[in-house]
Parts: sequence; structure tokens; C-alpha cells
Amino acid sequence: MKRLENYTLGFIGLGLMGRPMCLNLHQAGARLIVHNRSPEAAKQLERAGILSVATPAEVARSADIILLMVADTPAVEQVLFGPSGLVEGLRENGLIIDMGTTAVGPTREFAKRLKQHGVDYVDAPVSGGEIGAINGTLTIMAGGEEQAIQRALPLFDVLGSRFTHVGDIGAGQIAKAANQVIVGLNIGAVAEALTLARQAGADPAKVREALMGGFASSRILEVHGQRMIDGDFAPGGKITTQHKDLRQALELAADYHLELPATRLNAELYQTLIDQGLGDLDHSALIKVLKGE
Amino acid sequence: MKRLENYTLGFIGLGLMGRPMCLNLHQAGARLIVHNRSPEAAKQLERAGILSVATPAEVARSADIILLMVADTPAVEQVLFGPSGLVEGLRENGLIIDMGTTAVGPTREFAKRLKQHGVDYVDAPVSGGEIGAINGTLTIMAGGEEQAIQRALPLFDVLGSRFTHVGDIGAGQIAKAANQVIVGLNIGAVAEALTLARQAGADPAKVREALMGGFASSRILEVHGQRMIDGDFAPGGKITTQHKDLRQALELAADYHLELPATRLNAELYQTLIDQGLGDLDHSALIKVLKGE
Repeated sequence: MKRLENYTLGFIGLGLMGRPMCLNLHQAGARLIVHNRSPEAAKQLERAGILSVATPAEVARSADIILLMVADTPAVEQVLFGPSGLVEGLRENGLIIDMGTTAVGPTREFAKRLKQHGVDYVDAPVSGGEIGAINGTLTIMAGGEEQAIQRALPLFDVLGSRFTHVGDIGAGQIAKAANQVIVGLNIGAVAEALTLARQAGADPAKVREALMGGFASSRILEVHGQRMIDGDFAPGGKITTQHKDLRQALELAADYHLELPATRLNAELYQTLIDQGLGDLDHSALIKVLKGE
Repeated sequence: MKRLENYTLGFIGLGLMGRPMCLNLHQAGARLIVHNRSPEAAKQLERAGILSVATPAEVARSADIILLMVADTPAVEQVLFGPSGLVEGLRENGLIIDMGTTAVGPTREFAKRLKQHGVDYVDAPVSGGEIGAINGTLTIMAGGEEQAIQRALPLFDVLGSRFTHVGDIGAGQIAKAANQVIVGLNIGAVAEALTLARQAGADPAKVREALMGGFASSRILEVHGQRMIDGDFAPGGKITTQHKDLRQALELAADYHLELPATRLNAELYQTLIDQGLGDLDHSALIKVLKGE
């Protein structure tokens, strides 16, 4: 089980996802040096015997391979190039793996700048949520050069149960954007279908059952359809996160002069719920935007 | 294999779906009396030893259980109550099973009128397309009274591989409307996601592969995503049919003062393709409405 016992890994970003990912790498035998902007999360990991340091630069001085799991694109830029950022401590032949959901253009730019420091960069965002992070069953979609991906594979093997090398740097983030578009729109589809069924006088649970296994079947119908039927909107994936990811997908589309009408509408529906103060609910709460009289 | 050898069945509507369904019932041992508005389709079946008659009334005089697979709600009404319609020949204790996609309100109304003739009515629309009809692997979602459903089950067992008794009369059609809403919207989701991926510089086939098995996975991503990647838009399910079903779902929603914004947008996108003369393509050709520059 100690598959990573010869590895020294840096890990930056100890949120809901980062913390359990860190613990899985630790349990696989890796030596970890971690950093988090607010130090409380790091203290929890110290109790498990994981070393925490005060700045990204210090992480870079101690580890060849560094994983990032921070909130958004500006946070990635800050960790890489901000004061006491990773670049200040980088070692030759380093590898940085961004596992968060980051914009495609900046990802390509970061990779170019790091290359000048002799450091490889891989974008490897994930799907599967907190549960997937805890169980080590994340779906990982990666972009980057083949030999950099090869170095990252033993780590991905611990963190996830599915891995695809999608293409060049940025391709992982493109796949993640596509993933979020489908997730958001499929939630919208199930919300409208089950609301229609209920209003017209059928039992939504029976309708869901009838549709599973046919052309309408999806992971969203299975998991989030059940949440809608149960009225259980504890996250899971938050509306605010889903909305941020949809905005990012729309900005990526705009970079390529592409209009995505259904994605735009879906983002607006999520915005309506945020305006109503419901942003912290699970994204399946999109069904609340539909009013049946 | 001759599971239906004591059955005499009527079958009306010998289109792309009805013909193979008829042949499957015949091969299971049932004696069939069929009718089709235009007689050519019936002649093909006569070569297989299936008896065809000139009117629905004649079908009703020869069979206790009659299946309908006709184009739309007006066609169902015509077959049931029009000149030489089924009611003119109905026998006591008959059972009529409508397996087409028919509006919910009229379905409930037809059932009420037939009850006055002592005849049971079941709505049992299907999902799975021509392939499912040929292979006897349709998904069947039914509404009606329990004892009527029980009489229909041996037939469903031959025609499909999945069956759900959703609820009272009309509930099968409600489930089918929900099914078509999800299918249309999931196609839209995959179309926008794969177009975004391609425009932004990733291989759509790799992106589809990365997303299968995660939260974005669906039967539509699997089947219709592949069609989009291959540019293979031979139907399958036609755009005109999908559009008709979405309009019907929107009308059902309107009956209950329910607005379905994503379904409305999806129907408009399909309308755009029909206006461009593309209505006979498979519904996965929705991707053609998205223009990347």
C-alpha cells in the first residue's frame, strides 16, 4: 500500500478537496510539505504528522513535485508568482500540478513562464467532489507534455479511479469546462423533467425509475434526480461553485467567438438562486427556480 | 420461445417502430390482425403470414387486445373514434394499449370514453428508437389500472427489456414527456460542451472519453456524443420528432401554468434547424446550430 514512500510532495490549498487528497497521499507513504493561506487547515494535518510551512516558496525549496488545489485562477497566479510564491524557491526539474478548476488561457501562460525556470506544469482538474477526494475515486482529466504526465501518474493513481490524458497544456481545463457545462445543463434537464412530471400528476420517483436505463439515463438523473426527489440540498457541489465554473466556460467560449445559448441560460438560472441567497445549497437545488402554480 | 401462442392481437400503425414490434409479437407466437392507413406497410407483413384488414373497426372485431403505434394525438383519436374506428367494432372486456407518444390530456379523455364501452385503456409509450423496436429492447413506461397493466405485461415482455408502471392513466405519457425533455436538453448539453472543447483546441473524442464515468456521463454523451464526433447524423431519432415531443411537453407544462425555460430554448434551437431544412437529420445534429468562428 505504501506506493509513494520514495516521494517528497508539496501540497498547496487545504480546503474541502485538498485536505482529504493530502491525507490520501500521506497514507500512500509520501512525505508531504504543505501550505495553506489560512493556517488552521494545516494545523489539522500536522496532527496526522504532516509538515506545514509558512509560504509557497518554502514548499518549493523542499519538494520536486508540488500539487495545487486552490480556489480560483487569481489564487493560482498568487501562489505561483506572488510574494514568496513558488517561483522564488523552485528547484531545477520541478513539476507543478494544478488540480483545481482554472481558466485555460492563464493556465497556458503559467506553463510558458514556468518552462523558463526549467519547471514542468500539468493541469489536472478533477470531477467527483468531496466524496471522490475522500475515497480516492476522483475522475482526473489532464493536459501537459507526455513525460510530465508520466511523472504525475503514480500520484493520480492514489487520488483517482479514472484518468485521461486529454492533450497539451490546458486540455485538462478544457475538459473540465466541458464537464461543468454538461453537469449544469443535465441538472437543468432533470429539474425541468421532474417538475413537469410532478405538476402533471405523476410520481417523480416513479418517473425517474422509468427513465433510468433508457436514453434519458445519466449520472445526474441517478444522483441529483434523487436529491431533488428527497429535497436534500446539502452540498455536494455548491451553486456558487457551479456558477463560477459556468461563467468560466462562457468566458472561454467568448475567447473563441462561440455563443453557448443553453449554458448562458443555465448560468442565469443559477444567478437567480444566488440572488435569492441560496448560493450555498447543492447545485441540484436549481429545481427551486422552477415555479409550478 | 412461443410465449404468446394463445394470444390474438390487433396492431394499428406499421411505421418504422410499429413494423418491427409487430414482427416480434408474431415471432413470439401471437396471431396478429393489423391495419395501417396506407396499405403498403401491411403488405410487407402479409408476406410474413400476418393478416391485414381495411379498417380499425375490423381489427376490433377480431382481437381482444389492440396495440396502437400511430404518429400523433389526432391520429390516435381518428383510429379510436373516427369513421370505421375501433369503437365501432369493440368487444366487451377489450384492452387498448397506446404505445405511441400522445398528449396527456387527450389520453385521459380517451380512457374515460372507452371505459363507457367496457374497454380498458393503457398508455405505454416507449424509448429506445427503431433499434430498440427491432431488438425487442424498448424501455416501456406505462400508465393505467393495475389489472389492465397485468394483462399487457406478457406483450411488454416481448417488446421491451425495461418496464415501469408509472401510475394512473396518462402517467406513462407524462414519463415520456419527461424523457424527451431530458433527451433534448442532454443533447444540447453535449453539443455545447464538445463544440467548446473543439474550438478551444482540445480533441472532442478525448474530452468525451475523459468525461465518461464521471458526473457528466450519460447515455446521450455515450451514443449521441459519438455521433457528433463522427458527424454521423443519419437517424436514429429525427429532429422533427424530437421537436414535436418538446412542443408537446411545453403544452403539457402550460396546462399546469409551468414555465420550462431550458426546454423552451431547446425547442427553439431545433426549430432553427427545421427552418434550415435539416428536420430529417438525427436529433444529435443539434450541434449544427452552434457556430464557432
